[in-house]
Order: sequence, then C-alpha cells, then structure tokens
Amino acid sequence: MRFLSFHCEYFKYKATKKSRSPVFEELSSENKQGSLENVIVLFISVEKRDENDESIIQKSMSEIEKITKQLKIFNIVILSFAHLFGELSSPNFGLNTLKTLASTLKKRKYNVMRPPFGWFNELELKAKGHPLSRISRIID
Amino acid sequence: MRFLSFHCEYFKYKATKKSRSPVFEELSSENKQGSLENVIVLFISVEKRDENDESIIQKSMSEIEKITKQLKIFNIVILSFAHLFGELSSPNFGLNTLKTLASTLKKRKYNVMRPPFGWFNELELKAKGHPLSRISRIID
Repeated sequence: MRFLSFHCEYFKYKATKKSRSPVFEELSSENKQGSLENVIVLFISVEKRDENDESIIQKSMSEIEKITKQLKIFNIVILSFAHLFGELSSPNFGLNTLKTLASTLKKRKYNVMRPPFGWFNELELKAKGHPLSRISRIID
Repeated sequence: MRFLSFHCEYFKYKATKKSRSPVFEELSSENKQGSLENVIVLFISVEKRDENDESIIQKSMSEIEKITKQLKIFNIVILSFAHLFGELSSPNFGLNTLKTLASTLKKRKYNVMRPPFGWFNELELKAKGHPLSRISRIID
C-alpha cells in the first residue's frame, strides 16, 4: 500500500461517472457526494504485494495514526487513487482492503468518509501550507 | 521525472513558509500567490536519473503536450512536488529543470504559472471528474 496524505481545511467530492474498473459500488444519496472540514485526505493505492500481507491493515493503521496524532485530526477521507506509480492489487482486493481500513479507523473513533469505489469524482479542496501538509508513505 | 496531472476548474496557491530545501527562490509580489482557471496542474518530481538525461525536457514536453492537446488546455501549473515515491535530483538541478520546462512551454504559447521553489504552499483547487482528470506519468 502507498498513500499521499493532504491535510485540508476542507474537502468535497462528487461522483460523476463509472471508471473503467469492473468492480464498483452502487451510488446512493448517502455516498454520491460528501464534504468534511479539517481533514486528512488519504489518496491510497492498494498494491499487488498487499495481497500476500496479512498485516497490511495493522501496518497502515500504525502509519496513519502517526500522522493523525501529530496533526491532532479525527476526520479522514479514504480515497482510492490509482496514480501513485505502484503495481495495483486486483480491484476486489483493493475495495475490500479500503473497506476494512475504513471500518478499523471508525472503531478507533475516527470520522471516516470513503467515496464510492469505481467512480470518477470531482474533488474540491484547500490544502494547508505547513511542513506536514503533504506526506507520502509506502507500507510494506 | 514523474508527474501527477490534475485537470482543474481552478487552482490557487499561496506560499506560506520556507521548506527544508537549501535552494529556494525569493518571494515577490509577483510569485507569492497566484490563480488560474481551466488548468492542468502538474505535481512534478525531478529525479536523480534525470541529471544524466540530456533529453529530459524534450521527453517531458512530449508527454505534457499529449495531455494538453487531448484536453485542449493552454493553462499549466508547474508545481515542484517531492512526494511521488521517486529518488529526487539535487535541488539545484530540480529548480533549473522546472525553470527550463516552464520557459519551453511558454515558447510554445502556453500560459505557465510556476509557484516559487523551496516554499510550502496553501493549495486550493477544484479537480474535474472525467476519465482524464487525473493522470500520472514517468518520463525516463
């Protein structure tokens, strides 16, 4: 797994059209758009090698919590993002991993927004300009 | 070189404080903030291997122009971005490469905005939600 983290004053998304992924979630009034303020937006690629890593959730939780604790943030966006130069997992594995990550974060009392998998989105955000505003991590 | 391309309805930046880079540009009323509409924002990492590649500008121009022609865009942001998982060039080489890329694009009649090198920035943007809104490329 690898991710880019943007610390944002606000983040909004709106699902627009189905991507090329054969795996996608149905849109509903609940998930077709959303917004959060003072939020860590995680642009995440689940990778091929994660398919053989039973502790990928535990390791990614550890890295994410380092960031949220440093920045004192409880709002998190989990956004599937294919464009981080890694070898992607299967779409099914990717979706399941992001779902598990989101539910694990919720159990730790984070407020989590996960835009639907398999859709293109409009994204609007204001990213802060401090030294930890943008972070990238590879979890392996 | 590698980059992420975001096709945005608008993009704004404001330099906030010096980064840890020993190489930085002075701020002026001209470059400390800026905005463009209907713009391709290129988050660019200049890489170590580019230091030995005399045709890096030519090859990156070719990839950038494929994107701008497909999307029919003439506004471009050249944003130095360290978080794309590559091995970065020296800061001096990185700055010079981005300057040359910007001036080469200007000669081809693009409208180019290049936030100052070596600074953290607030970024505000609205990224479109069509299939070519987000693209990543490795130039080697």
